[in-house]
Amino acid sequence: MPSERIPRDQAVAPFFVGVDVGGTNIKIGVVDDNGGTLAQTATPTDEELGAEAAMQRSRDAIVGLLAELGLTFDDVAAVGLGTPGSMDIPKGLILEPPNMPSWRYFPLRDCLSELCGKPVGFANDANAAAYGEYWVGSGRKCNSMVMITLGTGVGGGIILDGVSLDGAHSFGSELGHIIVDSSLDARLCVWGGGQGQLEAYASAPAVAARAADLLAAGRTSSLTRRIVQGEGLSSLMLFEEAEQGDELAREVIVETARMLGVGIVSVVHAVDPEAIILGGAMNFGGHDTATGRMFLDRVREEFQSRAYHVVRDSVTIDYAMLGGDAGYIGAAGIGRTLHQHSQL
Amino acid sequence: MPSERIPRDQAVAPFFVGVDVGGTNIKIGVVDDNGGTLAQTATPTDEELGAEAAMQRSRDAIVGLLAELGLTFDDVAAVGLGTPGSMDIPKGLILEPPNMPSWRYFPLRDCLSELCGKPVGFANDANAAAYGEYWVGSGRKCNSMVMITLGTGVGGGIILDGVSLDGAHSFGSELGHIIVDSSLDARLCVWGGGQGQLEAYASAPAVAARAADLLAAGRTSSLTRRIVQGEGLSSLMLFEEAEQGDELAREVIVETARMLGVGIVSVVHAVDPEAIILGGAMNFGGHDTATGRMFLDRVREEFQSRAYHVVRDSVTIDYAMLGGDAGYIGAAGIGRTLHQHSQL
Repeated sequence: MPSERIPRDQAVAPFFVGVDVGGTNIKIGVVDDNGGTLAQTATPTDEELGAEAAMQRSRDAIVGLLAELGLTFDDVAAVGLGTPGSMDIPKGLILEPPNMPSWRYFPLRDCLSELCGKPVGFANDANAAAYGEYWVGSGRKCNSMVMITLGTGVGGGIILDGVSLDGAHSFGSELGHIIVDSSLDARLCVWGGGQGQLEAYASAPAVAARAADLLAAGRTSSLTRRIVQGEGLSSLMLFEEAEQGDELAREVIVETARMLGVGIVSVVHAVDPEAIILGGAMNFGGHDTATGRMFLDRVREEFQSRAYHVVRDSVTIDYAMLGGDAGYIGAAGIGRTLHQHSQL
Repeated sequence: MPSERIPRDQAVAPFFVGVDVGGTNIKIGVVDDNGGTLAQTATPTDEELGAEAAMQRSRDAIVGLLAELGLTFDDVAAVGLGTPGSMDIPKGLILEPPNMPSWRYFPLRDCLSELCGKPVGFANDANAAAYGEYWVGSGRKCNSMVMITLGTGVGGGIILDGVSLDGAHSFGSELGHIIVDSSLDARLCVWGGGQGQLEAYASAPAVAARAADLLAAGRTSSLTRRIVQGEGLSSLMLFEEAEQGDELAREVIVETARMLGVGIVSVVHAVDPEAIILGGAMNFGGHDTATGRMFLDRVREEFQSRAYHVVRDSVTIDYAMLGGDAGYIGAAGIGRTLHQHSQL
């Protein structure tokens, strides 16, 4: 569910631009001082053309968006930039983003800042999305929250008193690497991460891989019919078949909830937030489907059965509400924080 | 190793008092603006006499300590107070401290503040100890660090940019509750905590319980001789026999290091600190013994084998250096922070 657009005459200045770099597309939005989106667009990442070209294309897209709104860069107080993979936030560098070899060690922040003539706030994409949910999404009533994104990988963002926990090496809030299974036969992450980490159980490919293992072991499932017809096994297919009552698909989703609940217990006892927000593309339909509601219930049950009583009943666990808009909204919000600090 | 005392004429004003409440004793120290200890004492907790009496006794002990130094409360800028168990930091309440039933829901902070006529900073005892190591101990060169205390229980403290991570419900940094084993036969904490949590493997009683299980299963060990002679099995006995080459004792200590390494991986990927500091009474002799060095090496190895490469080589793991002084020094430091903020 994308966030609603607010009309220009109801928007509150100053304005901010959020840039959310993904492997395929760069999402760009113009956001007002209350976190409302005035306009949004996207430009292809075109990784092979290099990082500088992508930043120039982003700049052109921003100019176009602003023009549509009757605005110029003079109306923009700051820009925010979220990027995937490892980074050096103090230096503004992207380090080794997955599947983006030509971007390695590029000074992305300063490049965009120079092109736009604006200060640029810089964050990991999952931390930016968390900031978006914190600012105007599911965490908007919280002072502190944790977001866990379930998708191609498992990401995380921790916001404490309005500040993204970026960490000493710009590697904070990487919640996909929390260990949820320390046994010697724990699963390996499909992306080459460590053994038994949350990402090895709760990413979309990991969910599909666990279903494939059960099918290979001879279990029957309505998944088989679709695979035989040539479809690739995916977490979306599991969701669809679980909705139709398939027992195996449901079992894998329950086990995913269990491992996610284990990871949440560890995070909550470390940072004690007000809320845990589940984002990313793999939400099994969220509140709108029986499977999505069952998944959330099982995550909550696992958490409550294991957590210390002080936090058991006081931490909210819920789905995110900004969908794919969270990244650019949060990036804009991080740009806004940078601007506010510069005004002190 | 207790921290050194600094002479009165080398101490830097203003002075701070740290009060570290334990189940048996209350440690009290007078600390200067650089975190140096001028004098230290202790008074019995005498839980059964109630919290107010303990605070009055603490106040009397502080007056005595100050008098020894030729000081009065006029020379003290603020007091800090660390207490065990659950608490409500904003309200200054101690909630349900273990083994201290008569103290429940007592307004400890305001009671001490009124008795001393000073502002009182309030913190969980493990967070206070972490702050002490951050201020003048093993973490003194860090902006962010995590301390894990191994003792009767497993506690934790997370310091980010000089601020103790107390959490939304005053339950932050409770690292003993991180899950390190999610299997169905994972161990239960001897204190009634959840299954598979770090405390169920790395507290002193948990270490003794694992050794007892191996002995009950028929394993031979030099521990048996001592138990037959009437000694109670303890983590200290395991340490001593490991030093003498006992294979079973060594095996339990190695497994403790493995589980601690697993927990550290989860914490590091959540908060990305500069250092992990191991404190508490159960350090197997620390750097001074073969067993202590072996334990630390195994913790580091487990961490490095599982952590993402960005943090694998940049996070320091080491023992604490302030021993039992960390708590009151850190409490004094938290009082100092309160004082500094009041001066802004």
